[in-house]
Amino acid sequence: MSTTPASGDSVVPDPSVRAHVEAHRPALVEELCHWLRIPSVSMDPAHAEDVTRSAEWLAEALTRSGFPTVEVWSTAGHPSVFAEWPSDDPQAPTVLVYGHHDVQPAAREDGWDSEPFEPEIRGERLYGRGAADDKGQVLFHTLGVRAHLAATGRDTPAVHLKVLVEGEEEAGSPNFADLVRERADRLSCDVVVVSDTGMWGPDTPTVCTGMRGLVECQVDLWGPDQDIHSGSFGGAVPNPATEAARLAAGLHGPDRAVAVPGFYEGVVELTEEERRLFARLPFDELSWLESAHSHAALGEEGYSTLERIWARPTAEVNGISGGYQGPGGKTIVPASARLKLSFRTVAGQSAEHVQKAVVQWVAEQLPYGVRHSVTFSGTTRPCLTPLDHPALRSLARSMGRAFEQRVLFTREGGSGPAADLQDVLGAPVLFLGISVPSDGWHAPNEKVELPLLAKGAETAALLWEDLARHWRPGT
Amino acid sequence: MSTTPASGDSVVPDPSVRAHVEAHRPALVEELCHWLRIPSVSMDPAHAEDVTRSAEWLAEALTRSGFPTVEVWSTAGHPSVFAEWPSDDPQAPTVLVYGHHDVQPAAREDGWDSEPFEPEIRGERLYGRGAADDKGQVLFHTLGVRAHLAATGRDTPAVHLKVLVEGEEEAGSPNFADLVRERADRLSCDVVVVSDTGMWGPDTPTVCTGMRGLVECQVDLWGPDQDIHSGSFGGAVPNPATEAARLAAGLHGPDRAVAVPGFYEGVVELTEEERRLFARLPFDELSWLESAHSHAALGEEGYSTLERIWARPTAEVNGISGGYQGPGGKTIVPASARLKLSFRTVAGQSAEHVQKAVVQWVAEQLPYGVRHSVTFSGTTRPCLTPLDHPALRSLARSMGRAFEQRVLFTREGGSGPAADLQDVLGAPVLFLGISVPSDGWHAPNEKVELPLLAKGAETAALLWEDLARHWRPGT
Repeated sequence: MSTTPASGDSVVPDPSVRAHVEAHRPALVEELCHWLRIPSVSMDPAHAEDVTRSAEWLAEALTRSGFPTVEVWSTAGHPSVFAEWPSDDPQAPTVLVYGHHDVQPAAREDGWDSEPFEPEIRGERLYGRGAADDKGQVLFHTLGVRAHLAATGRDTPAVHLKVLVEGEEEAGSPNFADLVRERADRLSCDVVVVSDTGMWGPDTPTVCTGMRGLVECQVDLWGPDQDIHSGSFGGAVPNPATEAARLAAGLHGPDRAVAVPGFYEGVVELTEEERRLFARLPFDELSWLESAHSHAALGEEGYSTLERIWARPTAEVNGISGGYQGPGGKTIVPASARLKLSFRTVAGQSAEHVQKAVVQWVAEQLPYGVRHSVTFSGTTRPCLTPLDHPALRSLARSMGRAFEQRVLFTREGGSGPAADLQDVLGAPVLFLGISVPSDGWHAPNEKVELPLLAKGAETAALLWEDLARHWRPGT
Repeated sequence: MSTTPASGDSVVPDPSVRAHVEAHRPALVEELCHWLRIPSVSMDPAHAEDVTRSAEWLAEALTRSGFPTVEVWSTAGHPSVFAEWPSDDPQAPTVLVYGHHDVQPAAREDGWDSEPFEPEIRGERLYGRGAADDKGQVLFHTLGVRAHLAATGRDTPAVHLKVLVEGEEEAGSPNFADLVRERADRLSCDVVVVSDTGMWGPDTPTVCTGMRGLVECQVDLWGPDQDIHSGSFGGAVPNPATEAARLAAGLHGPDRAVAVPGFYEGVVELTEEERRLFARLPFDELSWLESAHSHAALGEEGYSTLERIWARPTAEVNGISGGYQGPGGKTIVPASARLKLSFRTVAGQSAEHVQKAVVQWVAEQLPYGVRHSVTFSGTTRPCLTPLDHPALRSLARSMGRAFEQRVLFTREGGSGPAADLQDVLGAPVLFLGISVPSDGWHAPNEKVELPLLAKGAETAALLWEDLARHWRPGT
């Protein structure tokens, strides 16, 4: 059995770092509230200007925190923000911090207890769309670098620090890979630190070692050229709502595995060691179900819940619609129906291959007389970081000191553009995230735990020094 | 092989009836346009006052046409209109004409070329919601009775004429059976003439001998208590949209027969003779598909298209919804999903039994963790009229004279409350309908063919005289 990277390391905190973070925590929260008021919903064209405003706001915040270079980078879609703060030590490693400033859609009537874009502090929690995903986790870095400088007495960071915060993550990062390729010289680094993930729980700090990829698509089906009377024609012509249902129902087999032929091609299966490591985590199904707001665990046969969400590829129906939706009934065969599907992929799967498999599968399922289209939106690649990488050991040590306990390891079921950074920049990816499952990402009443926001800043402050001290890349 | 009722009868028109109908046709169309401007959408509570206005308008129109007794009958839902015109011959048969004054929902953006509630005449067609279903077919009776009186020189109709026009047919007639039971003495009759069906085509007059019944329901499914992140939780908890899809997909088996156990219990199967009669009709699949605005015929194996829509019970997905419906994607496991289903039943099936079968089937399909409810709206019973009934022979003769050709026989795939009338009043049901398949019932651009509206009036005028002459019920 492998030893965890942090075993044997000290978990003693740094008093100077902590003091600085605690002193400036109220100011950080106040700044975050300002940012959360900007509804930077990237997937809704009506909010395009808000996403631009969000980028400009962040650029000013980074400038205020001391970054000598701050730039807003336009893309074919929404803008990214880039900042750079070189170390006075030319041999120091270069770190690129990644996050995103766009958010998921949110509306009060979805079930929010307060306005999603009017942040509200209740107790030790800050509620608002983007509080945890991802504005809070981007913004703690502005305090982290200040605490690092204050505690070390340095004028510049101990590492060459770069920051890239994109504006299209919630829309599938359609232009991110291009941006990284075009700006590869400015973004070149030795390690990427992604702050867009969570940890096990408020009392169980963990480091994530991988994320799943994402393939999203919309399937449109057309039957009759208009809604037709179900009494006069029903039962004698194909019904696109029925066919949409057949597709959605056929996504999974009786064992709840994905039934699209070829979907699993290339999947890196879990090793017995990884399964044992996952099993060490204090998983309690009832509290997990509570965080999932769900009433039963159900998924692919032969795998635990954690394995299902972290290490297994999945298919999900995000939306289905067709026919009459109003009050009462309407006896029609509807003209059209639509599915919004997403597939989570794991290391070894190719998004292109999954897309081809889906296209072929859909075409094969439909009867003559039902026309269809399959439209893919941006894809995200999966990634995994080796447990024994020195930079990962630095992160585990720093987080252990901030939390005063040894950290464990997880993966992230969600998806982010980390793999694009890893592939294009040739740098390993670390995940420094302090969000917890109850934060409600993509859901009503999204929040961030304010004490954990401070731990994030503390971890970052410790990490820059630890990386500079223990790691000389390429040597 | 049986002979059709009209074989051997004359198909010579009555010049007086025709002259009167043609002279007053423009006035009938003008009146119909007034009525069509009232959006009497019974299933939408926002239109409740319009349904009442529609009833009042009709009551005035019936009074104008000479009915000495006209009453608006309130119900637990929308009002019905009753009118009565006794014959001076006390031995004459009593006829109850049935129709409905409520309409399906309609909105310009559904694909209408003109405003659905602003009737427009283009050529020989009148476009507007309710033109054929059913306001046009109710209103031709006002001209029919006038033409009957003018041609025969009578002061009162040759039959005791009653009219009942309900206001909730498109909402499943939830209060109709109760109304008929409560008012059975006023409604007592020897035969019911339902004018809410169609005929084969403009050049192929037919008499319908039966209608299918209808059972409608809404299935609501709830999974997580709120939308949750599909990356963090997807693949490990049940998804109500997937389960809704499974239900909808499981409604039919591989042979496209309804797969709900017990659904077919009691079904009166087609006889070989009925199948031969259906096969005599000049059915052209391509033009039928055109009228269905569909691109393929598909249905229960072992039956022709006409058999599927007229004589076989079916299940249809009228609407399906769940999860994200907006632009782009949203990576969630949705909190809920909904199905709107309808089942067409045939003679021998019990609506109550079908409902029980559906309730049990839904409950058995769903995994633990997905809660559900099944809500039924009003049901409609199926009915069939024997081919050799003397009143049906009168109708076939009258229609043959109006169209100057022998009529054939069909059934109607749609549903109406005719069976309630048949059961409660103990009277056989005749179907006098002049709508054609291209009229677009329940669809955008509903219309009625103006020449056929006149044929309807002519048939009614001839029918009252023929019934009085050839039929003495109970003797």
